[in-house]
This record gives sequence, structure tokens and C-alpha cells, in this order.
Amino acid sequence: MKILILNGPNLNLLGVREPDVYGKMSFDNYLEELRKKYPEETIVYYQSNSEGQLIDKIHEVGFEYDGIIFNAGGYTHTSVAIADAVSAVKAVVIEVHISNIARREGFRHTSFLAPVCEGSIAGFGLDSYELALQALRLRKRRHS
Amino acid sequence: MKILILNGPNLNLLGVREPDVYGKMSFDNYLEELRKKYPEETIVYYQSNSEGQLIDKIHEVGFEYDGIIFNAGGYTHTSVAIADAVSAVKAVVIEVHISNIARREGFRHTSFLAPVCEGSIAGFGLDSYELALQALRLRKRRHS
Amino acid sequence: MKILILNGPNLNLLGVREPDVYGKMSFDNYLEELRKKYPEETIVYYQSNSEGQLIDKIHEVGFEYDGIIFNAGGYTHTSVAIADAVSAVKAVVIEVHISNIARREGFRHTSFLAPVCEGSIAGFGLDSYELALQALRLRKRRHS
Amino acid sequence: MKILILNGPNLNLLGVREPDVYGKMSFDNYLEELRKKYPEETIVYYQSNSEGQLIDKIHEVGFEYDGIIFNAGGYTHTSVAIADAVSAVKAVVIEVHISNIARREGFRHTSFLAPVCEGSIAGFGLDSYELALQALRLRKRRHS
Amino acid sequence: MKILILNGPNLNLLGVREPDVYGKMSFDNYLEELRKKYPEETIVYYQSNSEGQLIDKIHEVGFEYDGIIFNAGGYTHTSVAIADAVSAVKAVVIEVHISNIARREGFRHTSFLAPVCEGSIAGFGLDSYELALQALRLRKRRHS
Amino acid sequence: MKILILNGPNLNLLGVREPDVYGKMSFDNYLEELRKKYPEETIVYYQSNSEGQLIDKIHEVGFEYDGIIFNAGGYTHTSVAIADAVSAVKAVVIEVHISNIARREGFRHTSFLAPVCEGSIAGFGLDSYELALQALRLRKRRHS
Amino acid sequence: MKILILNGPNLNLLGVREPDVYGKMSFDNYLEELRKKYPEETIVYYQSNSEGQLIDKIHEVGFEYDGIIFNAGGYTHTSVAIADAVSAVKAVVIEVHISNIARREGFRHTSFLAPVCEGSIAGFGLDSYELALQALRLRKRRHS
Amino acid sequence: MKILILNGPNLNLLGVREPDVYGKMSFDNYLEELRKKYPEETIVYYQSNSEGQLIDKIHEVGFEYDGIIFNAGGYTHTSVAIADAVSAVKAVVIEVHISNIARREGFRHTSFLAPVCEGSIAGFGLDSYELALQALRLRKRRHS
Amino acid sequence: MKILILNGPNLNLLGVREPDVYGKMSFDNYLEELRKKYPEETIVYYQSNSEGQLIDKIHEVGFEYDGIIFNAGGYTHTSVAIADAVSAVKAVVIEVHISNIARREGFRHTSFLAPVCEGSIAGFGLDSYELALQALRLRKRRHS
Amino acid sequence: MKILILNGPNLNLLGVREPDVYGKMSFDNYLEELRKKYPEETIVYYQSNSEGQLIDKIHEVGFEYDGIIFNAGGYTHTSVAIADAVSAVKAVVIEVHISNIARREGFRHTSFLAPVCEGSIAGFGLDSYELALQALRLRKRRHS
Amino acid sequence: MKILILNGPNLNLLGVREPDVYGKMSFDNYLEELRKKYPEETIVYYQSNSEGQLIDKIHEVGFEYDGIIFNAGGYTHTSVAIADAVSAVKAVVIEVHISNIARREGFRHTSFLAPVCEGSIAGFGLDSYELALQALRLRKRRHS
Amino acid sequence: MKILILNGPNLNLLGVREPDVYGKMSFDNYLEELRKKYPEETIVYYQSNSEGQLIDKIHEVGFEYDGIIFNAGGYTHTSVAIADAVSAVKAVVIEVHISNIARREGFRHTSFLAPVCEGSIAGFGLDSYELALQALRLRKRRHS
Repeated sequence: MKILILNGPNLNLLGVREPDVYGKMSFDNYLEELRKKYPEETIVYYQSNSEGQLIDKIHEVGFEYDGIIFNAGGYTHTSVAIADAVSAVKAVVIEVHISNIARREGFRHTSFLAPVCEGSIAGFGLDSYELALQALRLRKRRHS
Repeated sequence: MKILILNGPNLNLLGVREPDVYGKMSFDNYLEELRKKYPEETIVYYQSNSEGQLIDKIHEVGFEYDGIIFNAGGYTHTSVAIADAVSAVKAVVIEVHISNIARREGFRHTSFLAPVCEGSIAGFGLDSYELALQALRLRKRRHS
Repeated sequence: MKILILNGPNLNLLGVREPDVYGKMSFDNYLEELRKKYPEETIVYYQSNSEGQLIDKIHEVGFEYDGIIFNAGGYTHTSVAIADAVSAVKAVVIEVHISNIARREGFRHTSFLAPVCEGSIAGFGLDSYELALQALRLRKRRHS
Repeated sequence: MKILILNGPNLNLLGVREPDVYGKMSFDNYLEELRKKYPEETIVYYQSNSEGQLIDKIHEVGFEYDGIIFNAGGYTHTSVAIADAVSAVKAVVIEVHISNIARREGFRHTSFLAPVCEGSIAGFGLDSYELALQALRLRKRRHS
Repeated sequence: MKILILNGPNLNLLGVREPDVYGKMSFDNYLEELRKKYPEETIVYYQSNSEGQLIDKIHEVGFEYDGIIFNAGGYTHTSVAIADAVSAVKAVVIEVHISNIARREGFRHTSFLAPVCEGSIAGFGLDSYELALQALRLRKRRHS
Repeated sequence: MKILILNGPNLNLLGVREPDVYGKMSFDNYLEELRKKYPEETIVYYQSNSEGQLIDKIHEVGFEYDGIIFNAGGYTHTSVAIADAVSAVKAVVIEVHISNIARREGFRHTSFLAPVCEGSIAGFGLDSYELALQALRLRKRRHS
Repeated sequence: MKILILNGPNLNLLGVREPDVYGKMSFDNYLEELRKKYPEETIVYYQSNSEGQLIDKIHEVGFEYDGIIFNAGGYTHTSVAIADAVSAVKAVVIEVHISNIARREGFRHTSFLAPVCEGSIAGFGLDSYELALQALRLRKRRHS
Repeated sequence: MKILILNGPNLNLLGVREPDVYGKMSFDNYLEELRKKYPEETIVYYQSNSEGQLIDKIHEVGFEYDGIIFNAGGYTHTSVAIADAVSAVKAVVIEVHISNIARREGFRHTSFLAPVCEGSIAGFGLDSYELALQALRLRKRRHS
Repeated sequence: MKILILNGPNLNLLGVREPDVYGKMSFDNYLEELRKKYPEETIVYYQSNSEGQLIDKIHEVGFEYDGIIFNAGGYTHTSVAIADAVSAVKAVVIEVHISNIARREGFRHTSFLAPVCEGSIAGFGLDSYELALQALRLRKRRHS
Repeated sequence: MKILILNGPNLNLLGVREPDVYGKMSFDNYLEELRKKYPEETIVYYQSNSEGQLIDKIHEVGFEYDGIIFNAGGYTHTSVAIADAVSAVKAVVIEVHISNIARREGFRHTSFLAPVCEGSIAGFGLDSYELALQALRLRKRRHS
Repeated sequence: MKILILNGPNLNLLGVREPDVYGKMSFDNYLEELRKKYPEETIVYYQSNSEGQLIDKIHEVGFEYDGIIFNAGGYTHTSVAIADAVSAVKAVVIEVHISNIARREGFRHTSFLAPVCEGSIAGFGLDSYELALQALRLRKRRHS
Repeated sequence: MKILILNGPNLNLLGVREPDVYGKMSFDNYLEELRKKYPEETIVYYQSNSEGQLIDKIHEVGFEYDGIIFNAGGYTHTSVAIADAVSAVKAVVIEVHISNIARREGFRHTSFLAPVCEGSIAGFGLDSYELALQALRLRKRRHS
């Protein structure tokens, strides 16, 4: 499978920003681990702090890749435009969150993204990404 | 008249994305038709998925052009910054929507844009743009 | 095309009532102008201050005329019964407003009518009616 | 018993309007059936699209008839005036609805009428009227 | 002064309907008393259960009479159209209520009418009308 | 027909609990009457104060019986689980209430059950059950 | 009759504060006029900016005087304690406001006072006080 | 690891109830598959329609097992008591849902359970359970 | 007096569950202490995690015992059915809470139980139960 | 222990004001009884109708006394300033109410005071004060 | 300039009350520092816990002083009367808060005061007062 | 100190856009003045209309500079992503606004930014920036 891991705003600071909420490992190190463990999958990575660039990227890969593992960060709760991009494309999109957003501020309990994604995984630290990858794999097996 | 048609996020996918909601014609083809039908008007076109670039463009033309026909897509419902840009400029801005947004999800019933625009036109498919153009023409005739 | 322009409560006072909001031209004068400009369309006019009479009229013409251009005035925001009448008939119904209702009191931001109409046009003064007429004409051309 | 069946706005279109929601039988045919089945009851029928005429009729019969079977249509959800009329009179008033209004749009879940009626029956198609009639008969038996 | 006392829905039942809330005197008897006490004022009376007829009457007298004493009954809380009629005319309109509406159901605490009237008087039984009359007289004295 | 009358919490106290709201007759006596009047119908009765047991019973009979006449008592307003059980089964389920719930506390105006039932009957005392039975009979006749 | 005119916070500034909202006459001058016009009534005056002192005064006169004409100013919308004081005493209390509070900010549309007063008069400038006095007089005549 | 899969109300009907929402496979068959695939884990299964029995079971295993994979069905949205049970125990609890609850009725968007669980997985059909199992395994690896 | 102490969900875990919120003493030890201190009262104890069993128990003792000291735990905030049971019985019911629920999550600030109980005591740890016992004793003295 | 009983607005009218809600005994008589029954405690009493004076008193005794038994009357629901005073001092403060406030108007269901007090006791008539006193005594025993 | 620093309820406890929120310095010491640093300004100080006294003081100085630096404490969020006093006077009033109120309880996010003040400064500890003083000085320079 | 003044959307139009709200001076001129007045501080300036670029800049300087003076314009009220960036960095961030946002539209009363900033300053025109600079200087003095 060809899969995009798409990270939204502030996720470039992973390992630096609020380590008690988001953990101490940088995303690059994590990505390396993940690719080693799943060598049969092509895992492309993109991060941007810009809503528009995230939409551009979704358009770019969304008619070609098999799946998008998407942590939209703060845009999860405010962006209709990103949610519209997700429903416009053909790729299977899975919403992931590192932290358990249901435990945090009230404005993080609303997600424009959740209803347009295949499913959601939240609260497992960086493992949330790997679980999303496995979800794509399980899904592929059932549908083939 | 010098007129900008300004399209917001995901409208680059017209003809591709959810054709039962937005129709099957690409915007380029439509634009060509429109320019042919109204050769006496200068119709400039710009599309961006980025909130900031839309604001930049409004600033750029908003003190020089006669009118802006603006489909802000998903930013209609979430962007105070774009609405502020619209009220800052001198051009007449008209809000258009392809679909009847009052029939869709609740969050599409709120528009930050509507109160700062001259008027709104929604629900007529791509004809919404032509109606906005005619609105500018009718308005010009009344005021001259 | 056979078209009804249907005006709701207080629109008989056009030209008299709050001229800074609704303009100074009476509707009769405007209608005359409109009919002259579009001699090929049959434009019937009806105004009533009564919710029930508006519903009766929608029933009467709604299975026979091609379109209804409907400014429901204050009933726009309060009448489920009129909205039900609009969804019951076959004619294409277009919602129009003279003023930009999004700029006025909060209770004018809710419309029972919008989701059951083909589309909405608001904020262009009396030109809103002509734009609705043009919308019906554009629509007819596309569908024929 | 002397009973008024009172139908509100758009119910004159029964059999014509949205037949998948309201069924295909006209109310006249149904009424004939009902009168045949219950020859011992005097069943008077009145329909109006006008809030005011419905109130007038409630005043007219409400101190003389035994019961009113009342489908107020769209006015159910918006009319304080009709609800006031119902609480003013002596007749037993029963609210009926053809469709299951709890399954429809949110604004149909509020009823000004329900708290001032004896009881409510909704969702049984045209049978809702007959059930209301039987409710009046059962009630009479208990109270006599 | 030429003054219209305008009564809305169900107020024709005064003396009959819920006498513990609205008192036992019919409005005709009260009117006779009032006219005797203020022979120098021309007091015209109109009552209707129809929203549309109330609007028609406001239009009819609103550019000619000095004042309207208006008890809109249940329409107070639901009618934008009547409120629009009141703001359209030149006569001084005073809102009156027989009962203390602030003590009753929540939906009676909202008034579309109050902000477009000169002032409001509520809770003094039928005396509310006489107080409104005196308000018009005091007002006239101050402004002359 | 095979029909289950299903009573939820506190309805075992009928005749004992708040007799001015729920009446003085015990449900056993009422049931006996009902069975005598409709000997051609098999009427099974079950009451439980437990949400789980009500769900179990709905599962047990819901694929086999023709109809369920269901007074869910306090669970009407709070139980998503029971509503899910009702939508899962094939039997026709009718919501009944002894009292007019629209006249009581605000939290009784919301029903999770109403939208998943065929229809609702409320406010006729114990007659509500018989009316539901008749609704099932009328329905059967129409569909056969 | 023995009557207290009770003025709440900021009403000592009448004639000074926002004269376009509250007028230019000081309350002392007005009071003098009023006492001259109604020499047969004993009119006592008290003003305080303190919630507690207003309550103390209501207690002091509320079991002895015939009526209290009460403009609670800003406390109208925020003080449960003053409303409790009003319901505790025997005197007839009438709520008055100089301006039409329904036309002002949203938080002025809620009144803790209205439901515990006999009635309310708002929007007639200083005449509101005289109308309240007349309300007490009319009331006395009816009840004697 | 010793793991409880805990299913709440109506999940005993899997494969029978609304197969387009929940799929056609029974949970027993799925469980068999899962145990075969993960023979090194002890997977205990319990289902109940009763809120109280679910709490009892959580208490029973919650201080002894390593993890609970919990699909609380309709209780997710209404049960404070179950959420309290989850926070009381030591086992790691993971919330799972078969369907994407963010796409369904509004009342399913609130979860009392989510903030007290380790994390949430929703929308992957029966695979949601396997993903939760893998989450427990990944978590164990990180913490050991 | 014959008194039932009735504990709802999760209170069987007292001393085990979140000791910083609920304290470290088990309820059994506390009960023993209480019975020793008040030997003249018959104190019966019942705990259940099931809403239905709590209702059953209230029915069972509610027409026979003098008082019920009731900590409904999480059901306090969600159960209409339990509140209905409490209002159905004759015994004096007192609501108790160990913790100060007003300091905790928003959903714990609503109590269906409070308005149907005699009174409420919250925030005194296990002493809340003893205070409720004393409330029953003081009450008995006043009424005898 | 040195204890302040602090009564807020209108509680000086106890025995006079609405005796069916608050009882017929004056607070002075009650206080005398209480002091006799608990001669070992120093019970100081203060009542004021003024928010500011209540705050002054809390400051005055709050760093010196052991406990404050506080019935803030109407200020309970509106005063952030009093709640701030309570959290500022060291004394243990207990909220008491004579009536069951959960049974009264909606605005009495919100308490700014409850979350900053040790605990709350409501609904036991004047006994609420004695129960608060006992709560202080029980607390002292546990902590010493 | 002549400037009043006006402190509302509980601010007399500065240095004593919740020192982690409000700091450890008493206001007297701070004031001394401030006066030394700005010897050219006349800084008058007043503190009261009473809403009425704060209004009295605003009236007293508000037509004579140049500016008021106002920390209204808990009254910020509840007092319409104080806000009315501020809008009534001519002095420039600046709202200050020691803590960052946006980080605290939800009821502290609403300010009746902010819209009637010149500007607001919050979150800088005692420095908030000095910043307000500098704001007055900067403002004076611009306007002179 | 090294300080970034960070201006969000539309603030490039200062002096051009709505001069009655935002003043007539361009930001460049103001900046020059400010740098001259505080030569000992390094003041860097950045403006962008793009949410993403603002986040990028916060990341870039936020671990190196001493302070950020941040006017986020319209993003203040809509951007969780920017607020997350602010809480991620180490620099002291101060929220400033030129106008008094509490006096403007309701949607400008909510700030995602305020709770994550050190403090807020609003309503002093361009002086708001200088006050923020002084706040940083005062803060530094206290902490050194």
C-alpha cells in the first residue's frame, strides 16, 4: 500500500512541545522505526502548519494513494475546509490523535474531521499512528 | 468593469469532487463560457486553498477592482480573518455558493461572510456566479 | 415561462416603510419596469399580509406555474406552514430578500424557507427580484 | 357525540403532497369511510390554511361540541395563539399527526399544542384520526 | 386624539376564557366605560384572530391615527411580521397585556413587539388599557 | 396477533403511586378487562424496573411477536440502549404514556423512544394501551 | 394612599447621565411636579445605589405602605435578593423603567423583578412613574 | 495478558441487527477468529444488556486483568455510573465502537466513557476490537 | 425508626476506589460504627450497581420504613426512573453524597434526585450519612 | 469551637415572610434553642441584607473562627464576590438552605457558593443549621 | 493627572488571600512604590467590598478626576449597576485584573465592565495597575 | 531583551482599513517611533495574513526570544492551532488588541489566545503595543 502520514500544526515540535502531553520522542525517529517494522508498505510523510498546504497535499495524494493517516492537530476542531478536502478524495482517511482529546479542553471534544474519516484512533501516544496503519492493513484484507 | 472571481478551498476540484452536490463541469470550462457571454467585462480568476492567500488577494485587488464574486467554500463558516479583509476593502463583494447551503449540515448555516458582503446568492449551481455578475451590472446601472 | 412574484407581509408598503432599508420605489413601478424588460415572460403578482392567503396562493399556482419568486418578509423566520406549502408544490421556488438579512437582527438569520427553496438571493435591493427571474431563465436553459 | 375534525395548513393537499410521507388517499375519501364506520357520531369537518380561521372555528364550536380532533400541521410548532384558543374552550381537544413527527426535522419536535390538549396521537397515518375518535369514545364511557 | 385599541387572538373571549387569568368583564362593557370616562378622545376598536388582518389594520390606521394601544395576545411572542408592521407606521404604538406575562410560561417572556413599541404596560388587568391611554395623553402634553 | 404489553419502571405501582397523575386502577385489573374485550388477540404482559431486562425481553419477543405496546416510563427520556433495542427488532413497537407528558417537567419532553417507534399515544390514562392495541389492528387491516 | 417611590443605582444621576437615554430633568424637579398634581397621595422618596439598602427599605415600608413604585435600575437584571424582598412584603409593588429596556442590550431583557411585581411599565420616560401611580389608584378603586 | 472483551446492550444481536450498520458476522465467530490469531493472549468474553451487570463485571476483573476492551453500546452516551466504574479500577480500559459514531445521531457524539478510558477506537467494524487488542500489546511493549 | 441506607453504583468499592476523593474506610466498618452510636435505630443496608434493583428496593421498603438515606452515585445525574420511584413512595428520602459534587465535573451538578427528596447533604465524607440520620431524628421530633 | 451563623438577605424576616416556604419560627427563638442545646459551642450570629457587609464579616471572622454556617439567601445564586470571600478565608464554611432549593425556580439551582464551601445542607427547615453545626463537630472529631 | 485606583471586593486581602493566584505583596506597600515612581500624578486609593459604595465613589470622582483604574473583582462578572455607573461618568475608566481571568472558571470570562471601559489589562500581577497608569499617561499625550 | 511584535491578518492595512476603528497611522511609522523610544530593546517585526506562517514564526523565535507581543487579529477568535503554538514555546507571549474587542460583535468576545498568554491588553489603540512592551520590562525587573 501507498500511505501518507499527514501531520498538522505544531506536530513538527514533537519531542519538544509539552512532553508530558505528547511524549519525548521526535516524529522522525518514530517514523524510522515504523518503516523498519512495516517494510512492505510505502510510507510517505508530510507535515505543515498551514491549513491550505494540508488541503493541497490531500488533493495531491488523495486520488492516488491507498490511505492517509491524518493527525490534523488544532485544525481538527476548527477547519471545515480540511474536512471538505477529506470528503472530496478517494483515499481511506483515518483520524489519529496522540493524546486522549476527550480528557482535554471542551473545544477539543468537537471534531469536524471525525464524521468524514473512515474511523478514529485517539489516546495511544505515537502508537496511534501504528494502529491506524494496522487498521488500513486489516481493512485491505477484508476487502480483498 | 474589472471583476475578480475568487474561489476558496476545494473549488479547484470542481467537476471531480462530489459531482452530485457540485456538478460535473470544471470551473475552467465554465469560466470560458462566461467570458464569451460577457466580453465587455474583465473577469480575472483566482483560486487558493489557503486562508492567508485569499486575504492577500482581497487586499491586492480590493482597492482597485469594481467587484469581487467570492465563493469562500469552507472558510465561509469559520474565518473571521477573511470577513475582516472583505470589510476592509472598497470593492463590492458578493457571496456566492454553488449548493443550497441551508439544506446541508448545521455548521454551514452560519456565515461570517454574509453580513460584510453586499449580498448573497446560493443554490443555483454554477449559475450563481453569473447571477452575481449580473447583480454587479444591475447595481452599476442604478448607481450611474 | 409563467412566473408568480409573491410578496409577504408589509411589502405592500414598499417605498413608504423604512426607505433607508427598503428603498423609495413602490413595487408597482418596479413591476412595470420588469415586465417591460422581459416581455417574453408572463409575470403575475400577488401580495398578502396573511400567512393563510400566501399558502392558498402557493397551492393555487404551484402545480401549474414554472416558478415562484418569493419574498416571505417576516414569515421567512417564523412560518413552518408556508415552508411546508413550498415543499408540497412542483414549481421552482426562489427565496428573495431586498435587504441583506444577515446584517440585521439575530432572529432574521434563521429561515424556515431557505432549505425548501431552489436557492436564495438577498441584499440587492429590488434587483433581487430580477436576479431571481434571471436564475429561473438560466435554469430553464440548462435543463432544456 | 358531536365532533369536529379540524385540519390545519396544507392538509387540503393530502394525497397530492409528498405521498411517501402523508399517503395517497385524499381526506375526503377517508372521511367518508370514517363516517360510515361510526354512523352514531356526528363528524363535522373543517380545513383552513389560515391561523386566524382555525382560531375562529375553535371558538365557534369549542363551547358546543364534545370533542375536536385537531391536526394543526405546521402551526403545531409555531402558534401560541392557537394553543391559547384550545385552552380557552370547553371541548376535549386531541392532537393528531399523520406522520411520526419525532422522526422529522428538529423544529417539529416542539409542540405548543400538546400541553393544552387532552392527549396526543402521532405516526399512524390517517388511522391517527380514527384512534382519536376512539379515544373520545373510550373517554366518554369512563366518565359516564 | 384618534386612538385605535387593537386586540389580537382570543381576546374576543374576554370574560369567558380562563376568568381567573383574564377577569370576568367582557371587553365591550369595558370599552363603554372607557369611552365615557374619556369623552374627548376618539377610541376606535378592532379585534381579530388573524395575524394578516391585524397587519392590514395597522397599515390602515398607522399613518393617520395618533396612537395604537395594542394587545397582540399570543402573536406577541411569535410574529415578526406584526412587529415589522408596527415599525413601519408613524402612529405611537403601546404594548399592553392584561396579565403579568413574566409570571407565566417561558415562551411568553419573549416579545417581538416590545422593542418596536414606544413602551409596554403589563399586569394590571383591563386597567392596562386605560394606563396606555393615559400614557398617550401624558406624552402628547410633553411634546406639545 | 401476538402482542406484548411492556411496562417499564414504577408501573408495577399503578393504582398506588401518585393516583392523581396515574389513576387508581391496578394494571392487573385493567389487563383482565382488555383481554376480555379483545379475546381474539394474544396479549402477553411483562413489567420490569430494570433497563437490561426490558432490553432482554424486547430481544426475546421482537423477532416473533406482531407488536409491542411499550410504556418505558422514566427510561423513555434517558435510555439510548432501549431505543437501540427497539430499532433492532422486527415487531411493530408503539410508544404509550398514561399521562400527558408534554404537561409535565421539561426533561419529560424529550423521548429517545419516539423516533424509533411506529407511533406514539399519550395522555389518555389507561386507555392509551387500548388505543395502541387498536392502532395495531387498524394497521394490520390496511397492510393485509 | 401612602406610596414609596424607590429608585435604584445611578438614578441619582438623572438629568446628568446619558441624557439622550434618560432625559434632562432631575428627579427632584419631577417629584415636586408629581406631588403637586396628586396632593391627596403621600409620596415618599428614597434612592440608593446599594442593593442591601434597597432591601432594608423594602422591609421597612413593605408591611405598612400601600404601594411601592420601584425602578431597580441595573439590579433589575441581576438581583435575586431584591426580588425575594419584594415577594416577602405585603405592599403592592410596581416595576417601572424610564427607557424601553427591550430595545437595549440583551442582558436588560431579563428581569428577576417582573414576575414578583404586580405589573410593569417601561419606556415612557419619567411618565412611567406617574402611570404607576395611576395604576395604584385604579387598582384601589376596583378593589374598594 | 489477560484481557476481557466487554460488550454492552444489543451487541448480542450482532449479525442480526441493522446489518448495514454493524455487519453480518456474529460476535461468536469473530471471537473464535481473534483467539486463533492471538493464541498467546487469554481473551475472556462477557456481554450484558444490563448497566448494573456491566459494572459488576468491571469490578470483578478490573483489579486482576491487564486490559478491558469495552464497547458500551448505548450506555456510552448516558451512563455516569459505568464511567465511574471504569475510573475506579486498575486495568487499562479501551473504548471501541464498530461504527463511526461521529457520523450518527447527535446524542451519540457525547461519550461519558472516553475521558476515563486510555484511548478510543471507532469506525473500523469488528476490526476495532482487534486494533484495541494490538493497542494493549503495543502499550505493554513500551512499558516493559 | 426503621431506616434503609441505600447505596448506588460503585459504592461497594469504598475504601478501594479513588481514596483521595472518597476516603479510605470501607462502608462495612463505617456502618458498624454508626449502628453502635445509634443503637435505638434499626439501620438496614443495601447496595446495588443496578438501577432496576435500586428501584425494586425503594418499592419494597418505601411504604413501610420511616426513612431512606440514599446515595445514588452516578445514577443521581442520569436516572429519571429512580427519581420517579422516590416520589412514588411514602418514606422520607434524603439525598447524600460523600464528596462535594459541586466541585466536580459539570455533569455532576445536575440532580434528578434532589427535587424529589426531602433534603440534600453533600461534601462531608462518610459523615454525610450520619448527618442524614440526624436529620431524620430531628424531623421526627418536630413532627411528633 | 467558635462558630458564626451568617444569614444573608431577607432572612431577618423569618417567621414573617412566606411562612409556608420558610416556616413560622423567628430566627431569634431558634437561636436561643440551639445555644441551649449546644452550650459548649460559642455561637455568634450576624445577619445583613448587604452583599458588602456579608463579605466584611467573612473577612473579619474567617481567619479566627473555626466555622461559618452560611445561608446566603438570594446571593447564593448571583454573587461571585461572596464566593471569593469564602475561598479567601481559613474557616470551614458550610452552605445551608432552609428550603429544598432544587424544587424551586431554575435560577435557584445554580450556586456560586457550593463549590467553595466544605459541604452543603438543604431542605430541612431550620434544622439545616443544627445539622451544619453537627457537621462541624463530627469533622472536628475526625481531624483531631 | 488626578487618578483614582478603585479596588472591589476581597482586594483588601491582597497578600493574604490565595497568594499563588494574587501574589504576596499587600496593596498598601505596592501603592507606596507606585506613588514614589510617579510623583507627578495624584493617586487616590479606595477599596470597598460593597457594590453600592463602589458606585457612590464612581459618581463622586467620575466628573472631576482624569482617570479611574478599576479592579472590580467579583463584581466584574455580575454587576450591571457598576457598569452603568462607569458609562454615566466622564472620567476615563480602565479595567484591570491581577490574574489572567481567561485561565480561570468560565463565569470569569464574562465581563459587564469591559465594554464600558476605555480598555482592559489583565494577567500581569500588580503590574497591571502600573500599566493602566501608563495607559492613561500615553493617552493624555496623544490627545494633547 | 529580544522581542517580536507579531501582527496577524489585515493588520498590514493599518492606517488604510476602517480608520475610525483602527486609527490613521501606519504600523511602520508607529514602529519607528517605538524603536526610538526604547533603543535598548531589540524589536523585530513580522506580519502575515496566513495562520500557518504565524505558527512557523512563533516556532522560529519562541525558544530564543524573550517575548512576543501578539495581535492575532481575526485568528484570535478562531485558531486553536495558533493557541497551541503559543503554549508550546518558552517565550512570554502577550495578547494585544488595538480596539476594545468587548464592544464589538459577539464572536470577538471569545479568545482562544487569552488563556495561553501571560496577559492581555486591549482597547488603547496603537498604545496597546507599547503597554505590552512595558509589561515585558516590568516583568523582567520583578523576576531578576
